Amino acid sequence: MAELVAIDDPADPRLADYRDLRDVELRKHLEAEHGLFLAEGEKVVRRALEAGYAPRSFLMAPRWLDGLADVLDPTDAPCYVVSEQLAEEVTGFHVHRGALASLHRRPLPTVDEVLTGARSVLVLEDIVDHTNVGAIFRCGAALGFDAVLLAPRCADPLYRRSVKVGMGAVFSTPWTRLPGWADALPSLSERGFTTVALTLAPDAVPIEEAVAGIDQVALVLGSEGHGLSRRWEESADRRAVIPMAAGIDSLNVAAATAVACYVASRR
Amino acid sequence: MAELVAIDDPADPRLADYRDLRDVELRKHLEAEHGLFLAEGEKVVRRALEAGYAPRSFLMAPRWLDGLADVLDPTDAPCYVVSEQLAEEVTGFHVHRGALASLHRRPLPTVDEVLTGARSVLVLEDIVDHTNVGAIFRCGAALGFDAVLLAPRCADPLYRRSVKVGMGAVFSTPWTRLPGWADALPSLSERGFTTVALTLAPDAVPIEEAVAGIDQVALVLGSEGHGLSRRWEESADRRAVIPMAAGIDSLNVAAATAVACYVASRR
Ligand SMILES: C[S@@+](CC[C@H](N)C(=O)[O-])C[C@H]1O[C@@H](n2cnc3c(N)ncnc32)[C@H](O)[C@@H]1O
Ligand SMILES: C[S@@+](CC[C@H](N)C(=O)[O-])C[C@H]1O[C@@H](n2cnc3c(N)ncnc32)[C@H](O)[C@@H]1O
Repeated sequence: MAELVAIDDPADPRLADYRDLRDVELRKHLEAEHGLFLAEGEKVVRRALEAGYAPRSFLMAPRWLDGLADVLDPTDAPCYVVSEQLAEEVTGFHVHRGALASLHRRPLPTVDEVLTGARSVLVLEDIVDHTNVGAIFRCGAALGFDAVLLAPRCADPLYRRSVKVGMGAVFSTPWTRLPGWADALPSLSERGFTTVALTLAPDAVPIEEAVAGIDQVALVLGSEGHGLSRRWEESADRRAVIPMAAGIDSLNVAAATAVACYVASRR
Repeated sequence: MAELVAIDDPADPRLADYRDLRDVELRKHLEAEHGLFLAEGEKVVRRALEAGYAPRSFLMAPRWLDGLADVLDPTDAPCYVVSEQLAEEVTGFHVHRGALASLHRRPLPTVDEVLTGARSVLVLEDIVDHTNVGAIFRCGAALGFDAVLLAPRCADPLYRRSVKVGMGAVFSTPWTRLPGWADALPSLSERGFTTVALTLAPDAVPIEEAVAGIDQVALVLGSEGHGLSRRWEESADRRAVIPMAAGIDSLNVAAATAVACYVASRR
Protein backbone atom coordinates (compact mmCIF):
# COMPACT_ATOMS: atom_id res chain seq x y z
CA MET A 1 0.00 0.00 0.00
CA ALA A 2 1.34 3.44 -0.96
CA GLU A 3 2.41 5.41 2.08
CA LEU A 4 0.09 8.38 2.60
CA VAL A 5 2.10 11.52 3.36
CA ALA A 6 0.20 14.68 4.26
CA ILE A 7 1.99 17.80 3.04
CA ASP A 8 0.97 21.38 3.77
CA ASP A 9 4.03 23.35 2.72
CA PRO A 10 3.93 24.27 -0.99
CA ALA A 11 7.75 24.54 -0.96
CA ASP A 12 8.20 20.93 0.20
CA PRO A 13 10.90 19.45 -2.05
CA ARG A 14 9.01 16.17 -2.31
CA LEU A 15 6.53 17.98 -4.55
CA ALA A 16 9.23 18.79 -7.15
CA ASP A 17 7.77 16.47 -9.82
CA TYR A 18 4.50 18.42 -9.78
CA ARG A 19 5.72 21.99 -10.05
CA ASP A 20 4.63 24.58 -12.62
CA LEU A 21 2.79 22.23 -14.94
CA ARG A 22 1.86 25.04 -17.30
CA ASP A 23 5.44 26.04 -17.98
CA VAL A 24 6.10 23.88 -21.05
CA GLU A 25 9.80 24.67 -21.41
CA LEU A 26 10.58 24.11 -17.76
CA ARG A 27 8.65 20.86 -17.73
CA LYS A 28 10.44 19.54 -20.82
CA HIS A 29 13.80 19.87 -19.07
CA LEU A 30 12.60 18.60 -15.75
CA GLU A 31 10.89 15.55 -17.20
CA ALA A 32 13.74 14.65 -19.53
CA GLU A 33 16.39 15.04 -16.85
CA HIS A 34 14.55 13.02 -14.26
CA GLY A 35 13.09 10.50 -16.69
CA LEU A 36 9.56 11.07 -15.52
CA PHE A 37 6.16 11.93 -16.93
CA LEU A 38 2.83 12.88 -15.40
CA ALA A 39 -0.59 11.31 -15.67
CA GLU A 40 -3.66 13.33 -14.73
CA GLY A 41 -7.11 12.15 -13.78
CA GLU A 42 -8.29 8.89 -12.33
CA LYS A 43 -8.83 7.15 -15.66
CA VAL A 44 -5.48 8.07 -17.13
CA VAL A 45 -3.53 7.31 -13.93
CA ARG A 46 -5.20 3.92 -13.83
CA ARG A 47 -4.33 3.19 -17.45
CA ALA A 48 -0.67 4.17 -16.96
CA LEU A 49 -0.36 1.71 -14.10
CA GLU A 50 -2.22 -1.01 -15.97
CA ALA A 51 0.25 -0.55 -18.81
CA GLY A 52 3.02 -1.32 -16.35
CA TYR A 53 4.57 2.11 -15.81
CA ALA A 54 6.18 2.32 -12.37
CA PRO A 55 5.00 5.22 -10.20
CA ARG A 56 7.46 7.60 -8.53
CA SER A 57 4.68 9.16 -6.45
CA PHE A 58 1.06 10.29 -6.45
CA LEU A 59 -0.45 13.66 -5.58
CA MET A 60 -4.04 13.75 -4.43
CA ALA A 61 -6.64 15.75 -2.61
CA PRO A 62 -8.23 13.70 0.18
CA ARG A 63 -11.53 13.20 -1.63
CA TRP A 64 -9.77 11.26 -4.42
CA LEU A 65 -8.18 8.68 -2.17
CA ASP A 66 -11.14 6.35 -2.04
CA GLY A 67 -11.68 6.11 -5.78
CA LEU A 68 -8.06 5.16 -6.32
CA ALA A 69 -7.60 2.87 -3.33
CA ASP A 70 -7.20 -0.21 -5.55
CA VAL A 71 -4.52 1.58 -7.54
CA LEU A 72 -2.58 2.69 -4.48
CA ASP A 73 -2.86 -0.71 -2.89
CA PRO A 74 -0.16 -2.69 -4.72
CA THR A 75 2.48 0.07 -4.86
CA ASP A 76 5.25 1.29 -2.55
CA ALA A 77 5.42 4.78 -4.03
CA PRO A 78 4.43 7.60 -1.68
CA CYS A 79 1.06 9.31 -2.09
CA TYR A 80 1.25 12.99 -1.18
CA VAL A 81 -2.05 14.14 0.21
CA VAL A 82 -2.62 17.87 -0.16
CA SER A 83 -5.50 20.32 -0.13
CA GLU A 84 -6.93 21.27 -3.52
CA GLN A 85 -5.66 24.77 -2.88
CA LEU A 86 -2.12 23.57 -2.30
CA ALA A 87 -2.29 21.37 -5.40
CA GLU A 88 -3.27 24.45 -7.38
CA GLU A 89 -0.48 26.50 -5.86
CA VAL A 90 2.18 23.92 -6.70
CA THR A 91 1.02 22.89 -10.17
CA GLY A 92 -0.08 26.36 -11.26
CA PHE A 93 -3.56 25.36 -12.34
CA HIS A 94 -6.80 23.98 -11.02
CA VAL A 95 -6.51 20.18 -10.99
CA HIS A 96 -10.02 19.29 -12.16
CA ARG A 97 -9.74 15.60 -11.83
CA GLY A 98 -7.94 15.65 -8.55
CA ALA A 99 -5.45 12.88 -9.05
CA LEU A 100 -1.93 13.20 -10.44
CA ALA A 101 0.80 10.57 -10.69
CA SER A 102 4.45 10.95 -11.55
CA LEU A 103 5.76 7.86 -13.34
CA HIS A 104 9.11 6.58 -14.57
CA ARG A 105 9.68 6.69 -18.30
CA ARG A 106 10.91 3.46 -19.85
CA PRO A 107 13.65 2.96 -22.42
CA LEU A 108 12.08 3.26 -25.86
CA PRO A 109 11.76 0.05 -27.87
CA THR A 110 13.53 -0.30 -31.21
CA VAL A 111 11.69 0.36 -34.46
CA ASP A 112 11.76 -3.36 -35.20
CA GLU A 113 10.17 -4.19 -31.88
CA VAL A 114 7.42 -1.67 -32.46
CA LEU A 115 6.75 -2.91 -35.97
CA THR A 116 6.62 -6.62 -35.15
CA GLY A 117 3.25 -7.89 -36.33
CA ALA A 118 2.05 -4.40 -37.26
CA ARG A 119 -0.06 -3.95 -40.36
CA SER A 120 -1.07 -0.28 -40.06
CA VAL A 121 1.20 2.38 -38.59
CA LEU A 122 1.29 6.16 -38.28
CA VAL A 123 4.48 8.13 -38.83
CA LEU A 124 4.56 11.69 -37.50
CA GLU A 125 7.10 14.17 -38.75
CA ASP A 126 7.40 17.42 -36.78
CA ILE A 127 4.04 17.77 -35.05
CA VAL A 128 4.66 20.49 -32.47
CA ASP A 129 1.36 20.64 -30.61
CA HIS A 130 0.91 18.18 -27.74
CA THR A 131 -2.85 18.27 -28.16
CA ASN A 132 -2.47 17.09 -31.74
CA VAL A 133 -0.06 14.32 -30.76
CA GLY A 134 -2.51 13.05 -28.14
CA ALA A 135 -5.47 13.30 -30.50
CA ILE A 136 -3.56 11.36 -33.17
CA PHE A 137 -2.69 8.52 -30.78
CA ARG A 138 -6.29 8.30 -29.62
CA CYS A 139 -7.62 8.24 -33.12
CA GLY A 140 -5.06 5.71 -34.35
CA ALA A 141 -5.95 3.38 -31.49
CA ALA A 142 -9.68 3.78 -32.11
CA LEU A 143 -9.37 3.06 -35.81
CA GLY A 144 -7.24 -0.03 -35.46
CA PHE A 145 -3.72 1.29 -36.04
CA ASP A 146 -1.01 -0.85 -34.45
CA ALA A 147 1.92 1.50 -33.84
CA VAL A 148 3.21 5.06 -34.05
CA LEU A 149 6.70 6.20 -35.13
CA LEU A 150 7.95 9.71 -34.39
CA ALA A 151 10.52 11.78 -36.23
CA PRO A 152 13.33 13.02 -34.00
CA ARG A 153 11.69 16.44 -33.58
CA CYS A 154 8.06 15.43 -33.08
CA ALA A 155 6.52 16.55 -29.76
CA ASP A 156 6.59 14.17 -26.78
CA PRO A 157 3.61 11.78 -26.47
CA LEU A 158 4.26 11.41 -22.75
CA TYR A 159 3.90 15.12 -22.11
CA ARG A 160 0.96 15.63 -19.73
CA ARG A 161 -1.26 17.28 -22.29
CA SER A 162 -0.64 14.57 -24.93
CA VAL A 163 -1.39 11.87 -22.40
CA LYS A 164 -4.57 13.59 -21.29
CA VAL A 165 -5.95 14.31 -24.76
CA GLY A 166 -4.91 10.83 -25.88
CA MET A 167 -6.96 9.29 -23.06
CA GLY A 168 -4.07 6.98 -22.33
CA ALA A 169 -3.79 5.62 -25.90
CA VAL A 170 -0.11 6.45 -25.67
CA PHE A 171 0.21 3.72 -23.03
CA SER A 172 -1.51 1.02 -25.00
CA THR A 173 -0.11 1.76 -28.47
CA PRO A 174 3.48 0.66 -29.18
CA TRP A 175 5.55 3.67 -30.27
CA THR A 176 9.11 4.88 -30.54
CA ARG A 177 11.38 7.54 -32.04
CA LEU A 178 12.91 6.97 -35.43
CA PRO A 179 16.68 6.96 -35.02
CA GLY A 180 17.21 9.24 -38.01
CA TRP A 181 15.22 11.60 -40.14
CA ALA A 182 16.66 11.60 -43.64
CA ASP A 183 16.16 7.94 -44.56
CA ALA A 184 13.30 7.19 -42.23
CA LEU A 185 10.70 6.48 -44.92
CA PRO A 186 12.90 4.39 -47.26
CA SER A 187 13.87 2.28 -44.25
CA LEU A 188 10.18 1.56 -43.64
CA SER A 189 9.72 0.63 -47.29
CA GLU A 190 12.61 -1.83 -46.93
CA ARG A 191 10.74 -3.41 -44.06
CA GLY A 192 7.76 -4.05 -46.33
CA PHE A 193 5.58 -1.03 -45.56
CA THR A 194 4.11 1.15 -48.27
CA THR A 195 4.63 4.69 -47.03
CA VAL A 196 1.78 7.06 -47.91
CA ALA A 197 2.51 10.75 -47.34
CA LEU A 198 -0.57 12.82 -46.55
CA THR A 199 0.00 16.05 -48.40
CA LEU A 200 -1.46 18.81 -50.50
CA ALA A 201 1.25 18.31 -53.14
CA PRO A 202 -0.11 18.66 -56.68
CA ASP A 203 0.68 15.06 -57.62
CA ALA A 204 -1.14 13.57 -54.62
CA VAL A 205 -3.95 11.13 -55.40
CA PRO A 206 -7.17 10.84 -53.39
CA ILE A 207 -6.60 8.86 -50.20
CA GLU A 208 -8.99 6.04 -51.05
CA GLU A 209 -7.13 5.35 -54.23
CA ALA A 210 -3.73 5.71 -52.56
CA VAL A 211 -4.35 3.02 -49.94
CA ALA A 212 -6.29 0.59 -52.11
CA GLY A 213 -4.74 -2.86 -52.14
CA ILE A 214 -1.90 -2.09 -49.73
CA ASP A 215 -1.14 -4.73 -47.11
CA GLN A 216 1.25 -3.07 -44.65
CA VAL A 217 0.64 0.66 -44.67
CA ALA A 218 2.46 3.58 -43.03
CA LEU A 219 0.51 6.86 -43.12
CA VAL A 220 2.84 9.83 -42.85
CA LEU A 221 1.65 13.16 -41.40
CA GLY A 222 3.34 16.56 -41.43
CA SER A 223 3.63 19.49 -39.10
CA GLU A 224 0.91 22.02 -38.37
CA GLY A 225 2.64 24.97 -39.93
CA HIS A 226 4.55 23.87 -42.99
CA GLY A 227 3.39 20.34 -43.55
CA LEU A 228 5.79 17.57 -44.53
CA SER A 229 9.40 18.32 -45.41
CA ARG A 230 10.22 18.01 -49.05
CA ARG A 231 12.54 15.13 -48.19
CA TRP A 232 9.78 13.07 -46.62
CA GLU A 233 7.26 13.99 -49.25
CA GLU A 234 9.58 12.83 -52.00
CA SER A 235 10.89 9.72 -50.28
CA ALA A 236 7.40 8.32 -49.57
CA ASP A 237 6.14 5.57 -51.85
CA ARG A 238 2.85 7.40 -52.50
CA ARG A 239 1.38 10.85 -51.94
CA ALA A 240 -2.28 11.09 -50.91
CA VAL A 241 -4.70 13.97 -50.46
CA ILE A 242 -8.04 14.22 -48.68
CA PRO A 243 -10.11 16.13 -51.23
CA MET A 244 -11.33 19.45 -49.84
CA ALA A 245 -13.82 22.17 -50.77
CA ALA A 246 -12.49 25.03 -52.88
CA GLY A 247 -10.73 27.84 -51.05
CA ILE A 248 -9.73 25.83 -47.97
CA ASP A 249 -6.03 25.69 -46.99
CA SER A 250 -5.89 22.39 -45.16
CA LEU A 251 -7.39 20.24 -42.45
CA ASN A 252 -5.98 20.26 -38.96
CA VAL A 253 -3.46 17.41 -38.76
CA ALA A 254 -5.55 15.47 -36.23
CA ALA A 255 -8.63 15.73 -38.45
CA ALA A 256 -6.58 14.63 -41.47
CA THR A 257 -5.32 11.67 -39.44
CA ALA A 258 -8.85 10.69 -38.46
CA VAL A 259 -10.04 10.64 -42.06
CA ALA A 260 -6.91 8.88 -43.34
CA CYS A 261 -7.04 6.20 -40.63
CA TYR A 262 -10.71 5.60 -41.28
CA VAL A 263 -10.17 5.19 -44.99
CA ALA A 264 -7.07 3.03 -44.51
CA SER A 265 -8.86 0.86 -41.95
CA ARG A 266 -11.33 -0.08 -44.70
CA ARG A 267 -8.75 -0.80 -47.41
CA MET B 1 -6.90 54.75 -42.70
CA ALA B 2 -7.04 53.52 -39.10
CA GLU B 3 -5.67 56.11 -36.71
CA LEU B 4 -2.41 54.84 -35.16
CA VAL B 5 -2.39 55.47 -31.42
CA ALA B 6 0.79 54.69 -29.50
CA ILE B 7 0.04 53.47 -25.95
CA ASP B 8 2.62 52.76 -23.27
CA ASP B 9 0.49 52.55 -20.13
CA PRO B 10 -0.83 49.01 -19.56
CA ALA B 11 -3.69 50.47 -17.52
CA ASP B 12 -4.93 52.62 -20.41
CA PRO B 13 -8.72 52.13 -20.55
CA ARG B 14 -8.66 52.01 -24.34
CA LEU B 15 -7.07 48.57 -24.04
CA ALA B 16 -10.09 47.15 -22.19
CA ASP B 17 -11.15 44.85 -25.06
CA TYR B 18 -7.79 43.06 -24.89
CA ARG B 19 -7.46 42.36 -21.21
CA ASP B 20 -6.80 38.98 -19.58
CA LEU B 21 -7.40 36.85 -22.62
CA ARG B 22 -6.67 33.64 -20.73
CA ASP B 23 -9.39 34.20 -18.18
CA VAL B 24 -12.21 32.35 -19.91
CA GLU B 25 -14.97 33.30 -17.47
CA LEU B 26 -14.08 36.96 -17.41
CA ARG B 27 -13.83 37.06 -21.17
CA LYS B 28 -17.23 35.42 -21.64
CA HIS B 29 -18.92 38.19 -19.66
CA LEU B 30 -16.89 40.99 -21.18
CA GLU B 31 -17.46 39.84 -24.75
CA ALA B 32 -21.16 39.16 -24.31
CA GLU B 33 -21.82 42.46 -22.58
CA HIS B 34 -19.95 44.55 -25.10
CA GLY B 35 -20.97 42.49 -28.14
CA LEU B 36 -17.41 41.97 -29.24
CA PHE B 37 -15.06 39.16 -30.18
CA LEU B 38 -11.35 38.95 -30.84
CA ALA B 39 -9.42 37.76 -33.85
CA GLU B 40 -5.76 36.84 -33.49
CA GLY B 41 -3.03 36.62 -36.09
CA GLU B 42 -2.73 38.30 -39.46
CA LYS B 43 -4.57 35.63 -41.43
CA VAL B 44 -7.54 35.41 -39.09
CA VAL B 45 -7.86 39.20 -38.68
CA ARG B 46 -7.84 39.54 -42.43
CA ARG B 47 -10.53 36.90 -42.84
CA ALA B 48 -12.78 38.51 -40.24
CA LEU B 49 -12.65 41.81 -42.09
CA GLU B 50 -13.16 40.17 -45.47
CA ALA B 51 -16.25 38.50 -44.04
CA GLY B 52 -17.58 41.96 -43.27
CA TYR B 53 -17.18 42.12 -39.49
CA ALA B 54 -16.73 45.74 -38.37
CA PRO B 55 -13.62 46.40 -36.26
CA ARG B 56 -13.81 48.22 -32.94
CA SER B 57 -10.03 48.54 -32.76
CA PHE B 58 -6.73 46.80 -33.49
CA LEU B 59 -3.80 46.05 -31.20
CA MET B 60 -0.39 45.60 -32.76
CA ALA B 61 3.30 45.65 -32.15
CA PRO B 62 5.08 48.03 -34.56
CA ARG B 63 6.58 45.27 -36.67
CA TRP B 64 3.13 44.02 -37.69
CA LEU B 65 1.92 47.31 -39.08
CA ASP B 66 3.41 46.89 -42.53
CA GLY B 67 1.99 43.45 -43.17
CA LEU B 68 -1.51 44.64 -42.32
CA ALA B 69 -1.36 48.07 -43.97
CA ASP B 70 -3.96 47.08 -46.58
CA VAL B 71 -6.31 45.92 -43.84
CA LEU B 72 -5.94 49.10 -41.80
CA ASP B 73 -6.30 51.28 -44.84
CA PRO B 74 -10.08 51.26 -45.39
CA THR B 75 -11.13 51.47 -41.72
CA ASP B 76 -11.72 54.26 -39.23
CA ALA B 77 -11.18 52.10 -36.14
CA PRO B 78 -8.17 53.04 -34.01
CA CYS B 79 -5.07 50.87 -34.12
CA TYR B 80 -3.29 50.78 -30.76
CA VAL B 81 0.43 50.39 -31.23
CA VAL B 82 2.15 48.85 -28.25
CA SER B 83 5.41 47.06 -27.46
CA GLU B 84 5.29 43.27 -27.48
CA GLN B 85 5.99 43.38 -23.79
CA LEU B 86 3.02 45.64 -23.11
CA ALA B 87 0.81 43.43 -25.30
CA GLU B 88 1.84 40.48 -23.17
CA GLU B 89 1.20 42.36 -19.96
CA VAL B 90 -2.31 43.37 -20.99
CA THR B 91 -3.46 40.14 -22.63
CA GLY B 92 -1.74 37.82 -20.17
CA PHE B 93 0.09 35.75 -22.75
CA HIS B 94 2.71 36.02 -25.44
CA VAL B 95 0.99 37.16 -28.62
CA HIS B 96 2.86 35.01 -31.15
CA ARG B 97 1.35 36.38 -34.26
CA GLY B 98 1.50 39.98 -33.16
CA ALA B 99 -1.83 41.24 -34.43
CA LEU B 100 -5.13 41.32 -32.56
CA ALA B 101 -8.42 42.87 -33.58
CA SER B 102 -11.57 43.48 -31.57
CA LEU B 103 -14.67 43.24 -33.75
CA HIS B 104 -18.40 43.83 -33.37
CA ARG B 105 -20.56 40.75 -33.18
CA ARG B 106 -23.54 40.72 -35.54
CA PRO B 107 -27.11 39.69 -34.83
CA LEU B 108 -27.38 35.95 -35.50
CA PRO B 109 -29.35 34.91 -38.58
CA THR B 110 -32.47 32.78 -38.25
CA VAL B 111 -32.30 29.02 -38.70
CA ASP B 112 -34.16 29.38 -42.00
CA GLU B 113 -31.68 31.89 -43.30
CA VAL B 114 -28.78 29.63 -42.39
CA LEU B 115 -30.40 26.60 -44.01
CA THR B 116 -31.36 28.26 -47.29
CA GLY B 117 -29.76 26.24 -50.05
CA ALA B 118 -27.88 24.02 -47.59
CA ARG B 119 -27.50 20.34 -48.36
CA SER B 120 -25.12 19.24 -45.58
CA VAL B 121 -25.17 20.70 -42.10
CA LEU B 122 -23.61 20.02 -38.72
CA VAL B 123 -25.61 20.25 -35.51
CA LEU B 124 -23.65 20.52 -32.27
CA GLU B 125 -25.27 19.75 -28.95
CA ASP B 126 -23.29 20.74 -25.85
CA ILE B 127 -19.69 20.85 -27.02
CA VAL B 128 -17.88 22.64 -24.19
CA ASP B 129 -14.33 22.94 -25.51
CA HIS B 130 -13.60 25.94 -27.73
CA THR B 131 -10.79 24.05 -29.46
CA ASN B 132 -13.26 21.38 -30.51
CA VAL B 133 -15.79 23.92 -31.76
CA GLY B 134 -13.11 25.61 -33.88
CA ALA B 135 -11.80 22.29 -35.19
CA ILE B 136 -15.34 21.22 -36.14
CA PHE B 137 -16.01 24.42 -38.08
CA ARG B 138 -12.69 24.07 -39.93
CA CYS B 139 -13.32 20.50 -40.80
CA GLY B 140 -16.94 21.08 -41.89
CA ALA B 141 -15.80 23.87 -44.20
CA ALA B 142 -12.97 21.76 -45.64
CA LEU B 143 -15.27 18.82 -46.32
CA GLY B 144 -18.00 20.79 -48.03
CA PHE B 145 -20.53 21.31 -45.23
CA ASP B 146 -22.75 24.34 -45.75
CA ALA B 147 -23.85 25.40 -42.27
CA VAL B 148 -23.57 24.78 -38.54
CA LEU B 149 -26.37 24.91 -35.96
CA LEU B 150 -25.64 25.12 -32.25
CA ALA B 151 -27.71 23.96 -29.30
CA PRO B 152 -28.39 26.71 -26.76
CA ARG B 153 -25.55 25.51 -24.52
CA CYS B 154 -22.84 24.79 -27.07
CA ALA B 155 -19.61 26.79 -26.63
CA ASP B 156 -19.19 30.08 -28.51
CA PRO B 157 -17.65 29.80 -32.01
CA LEU B 158 -16.55 33.45 -31.84
CA TYR B 159 -14.49 32.88 -28.72
CA ARG B 160 -10.85 33.68 -29.53
CA ARG B 161 -9.66 30.11 -29.28
CA SER B 162 -12.48 28.74 -31.49
CA VAL B 163 -11.75 31.40 -34.09
CA LYS B 164 -8.04 30.65 -34.03
CA VAL B 165 -8.32 26.88 -34.23
CA GLY B 166 -11.05 27.23 -36.86
CA MET B 167 -8.70 29.31 -39.01
CA GLY B 168 -11.54 31.71 -39.65
CA ALA B 169 -13.98 29.04 -40.90
CA VAL B 170 -16.46 30.46 -38.42
CA PHE B 171 -16.55 33.65 -40.53
CA SER B 172 -17.17 31.95 -43.83
CA THR B 173 -19.61 29.25 -42.70
CA PRO B 174 -23.20 30.33 -42.01
CA TRP B 175 -24.16 29.41 -38.45
CA THR B 176 -26.64 30.25 -35.73
CA ARG B 177 -28.09 29.11 -32.41
CA LEU B 178 -31.11 26.87 -32.36
CA PRO B 179 -33.91 28.73 -30.56
CA GLY B 180 -34.83 25.69 -28.48
CA TRP B 181 -33.33 22.42 -27.45
CA ALA B 182 -36.11 19.89 -26.98
CA ASP B 183 -37.60 19.88 -30.48
CA ALA B 184 -34.54 20.98 -32.36
CA LEU B 185 -34.04 17.79 -34.37
CA PRO B 186 -37.69 17.17 -35.31
CA SER B 187 -37.87 20.75 -36.54
CA LEU B 188 -34.96 20.03 -38.88
CA SER B 189 -36.68 16.89 -40.11
CA GLU B 190 -39.75 18.99 -40.89
CA ARG B 191 -37.55 21.20 -43.03
CA GLY B 192 -36.52 18.20 -45.12
CA PHE B 193 -33.26 17.20 -43.42
CA THR B 194 -32.52 13.66 -42.36
CA THR B 195 -30.95 14.02 -38.92
CA VAL B 196 -28.20 11.48 -38.23
CA ALA B 197 -27.05 11.29 -34.60
CA LEU B 198 -23.41 10.23 -34.18
CA THR B 199 -23.48 7.98 -31.17
CA LEU B 200 -22.23 4.82 -29.55
CA ALA B 201 -25.82 3.69 -28.86
CA PRO B 202 -26.28 -0.05 -29.40
CA ASP B 203 -28.77 0.38 -32.25
CA ALA B 204 -26.47 2.69 -34.24
CA VAL B 205 -25.60 1.55 -37.76
CA PRO B 206 -22.22 2.14 -39.43
CA ILE B 207 -21.95 5.70 -40.71
CA GLU B 208 -21.58 4.77 -44.39
CA GLU B 209 -24.80 2.88 -44.28
CA ALA B 210 -26.56 5.58 -42.27
CA VAL B 211 -25.89 8.38 -44.77
CA ALA B 212 -26.33 6.35 -47.95
CA GLY B 213 -28.90 7.86 -50.26
CA ILE B 214 -29.72 10.88 -48.11
CA ASP B 215 -30.14 14.17 -49.94
CA GLN B 216 -30.23 16.83 -47.22
CA VAL B 217 -28.28 15.59 -44.22
CA ALA B 218 -27.80 16.97 -40.70
CA LEU B 219 -25.00 15.26 -38.73
CA VAL B 220 -25.55 15.62 -35.00
CA LEU B 221 -22.60 15.56 -32.56
CA GLY B 222 -22.62 15.29 -28.77
CA SER B 223 -20.60 16.68 -25.92
CA GLU B 224 -17.10 15.58 -24.92
CA GLY B 225 -18.07 14.10 -21.61
CA HIS B 226 -21.43 12.46 -21.86
CA GLY B 227 -22.17 12.42 -25.54
CA LEU B 228 -25.62 13.24 -26.88
CA SER B 229 -28.58 13.70 -24.60
CA ARG B 230 -31.08 10.90 -24.67
CA ARG B 231 -33.64 13.34 -26.09
CA TRP B 232 -31.53 14.19 -29.11
CA GLU B 233 -30.41 10.65 -29.62
CA GLU B 234 -33.99 9.45 -29.68
CA SER B 235 -35.44 12.29 -31.72
CA ALA B 236 -32.91 11.91 -34.54
CA ASP B 237 -34.07 10.13 -37.70
CA ARG B 238 -31.08 7.79 -37.66
CA ARG B 239 -28.28 6.77 -35.31
CA ALA B 240 -24.81 6.18 -36.75
CA VAL B 241 -21.56 4.86 -35.34
CA ILE B 242 -17.99 5.04 -36.58
CA PRO B 243 -16.81 1.48 -36.01
CA MET B 244 -13.88 1.33 -33.59
CA ALA B 245 -11.28 -1.17 -32.41
CA ALA B 246 -12.21 -3.29 -29.39
CA GLY B 247 -11.63 -1.73 -25.98
CA ILE B 248 -11.74 1.92 -27.11
CA ASP B 249 -14.22 4.28 -25.44
CA SER B 250 -14.80 6.81 -28.19
CA LEU B 251 -13.20 9.18 -30.64
CA ASN B 252 -12.65 12.80 -29.76
CA VAL B 253 -15.67 14.72 -31.07
CA ALA B 254 -13.58 16.66 -33.62
CA ALA B 255 -12.10 13.42 -34.98
CA ALA B 256 -15.58 11.87 -35.15
CA THR B 257 -16.79 14.93 -37.04
CA ALA B 258 -13.91 14.66 -39.52
CA VAL B 259 -14.70 11.04 -40.31
CA ALA B 260 -18.47 11.61 -40.45
CA CYS B 261 -18.14 14.67 -42.71
CA TYR B 262 -15.77 12.80 -45.00
CA VAL B 263 -18.12 9.86 -45.33
CA ALA B 264 -21.18 12.08 -45.75
CA SER B 265 -19.42 14.20 -48.36
CA ARG B 266 -19.12 11.06 -50.50
CA ARG B 267 -22.71 9.88 -50.08
C1 LIG C 1 -2.27 21.77 -41.22
S1 LIG C 1 -1.59 20.66 -42.36
C2 LIG C 1 -0.19 21.55 -43.01
C3 LIG C 1 -0.56 22.46 -44.09
C4 LIG C 1 0.65 23.00 -44.82
N1 LIG C 1 0.48 24.42 -44.96
C5 LIG C 1 0.79 22.31 -46.17
O1 LIG C 1 0.60 22.97 -47.19
O2 LIG C 1 1.12 21.12 -46.20
C6 LIG C 1 -0.77 19.47 -41.38
C7 LIG C 1 -0.68 18.11 -42.00
O3 LIG C 1 -1.99 17.54 -42.07
C8 LIG C 1 -2.10 16.73 -43.24
N2 LIG C 1 -3.21 17.27 -44.05
C9 LIG C 1 -4.01 18.31 -43.75
N3 LIG C 1 -4.96 18.47 -44.69
C10 LIG C 1 -4.77 17.49 -45.61
C11 LIG C 1 -5.46 17.10 -46.80
N4 LIG C 1 -6.54 17.74 -47.24
N5 LIG C 1 -4.97 16.04 -47.47
C12 LIG C 1 -3.87 15.37 -47.04
N6 LIG C 1 -3.20 15.70 -45.91
C13 LIG C 1 -3.65 16.74 -45.20
C14 LIG C 1 -0.75 16.75 -43.92
O4 LIG C 1 0.01 15.63 -43.50
C15 LIG C 1 -0.13 18.04 -43.40
O5 LIG C 1 1.27 17.98 -43.41
C1 LIG D 1 -16.05 11.86 -26.82
S1 LIG D 1 -17.56 11.41 -27.51
C2 LIG D 1 -18.61 11.17 -26.11
C3 LIG D 1 -18.47 9.82 -25.55
C4 LIG D 1 -19.55 9.49 -24.52
N1 LIG D 1 -18.93 8.94 -23.37
C5 LIG D 1 -20.58 8.57 -25.14
O1 LIG D 1 -20.64 7.41 -24.71
O2 LIG D 1 -21.32 8.99 -26.04
C6 LIG D 1 -18.21 12.92 -28.13
C7 LIG D 1 -19.10 12.78 -29.33
O3 LIG D 1 -18.33 12.35 -30.44
C8 LIG D 1 -19.11 11.51 -31.28
N2 LIG D 1 -18.41 10.21 -31.37
C9 LIG D 1 -17.23 9.87 -30.81
N3 LIG D 1 -16.86 8.63 -31.17
C10 LIG D 1 -17.83 8.17 -31.99
C11 LIG D 1 -18.01 6.95 -32.72
N4 LIG D 1 -17.11 5.98 -32.68
N5 LIG D 1 -19.13 6.83 -33.45
C12 LIG D 1 -20.04 7.81 -33.50
N6 LIG D 1 -19.91 8.98 -32.85
C13 LIG D 1 -18.82 9.17 -32.12
C14 LIG D 1 -20.49 11.43 -30.67
O4 LIG D 1 -21.32 12.41 -31.27
C15 LIG D 1 -20.22 11.78 -29.21
O5 LIG D 1 -21.37 12.36 -28.61
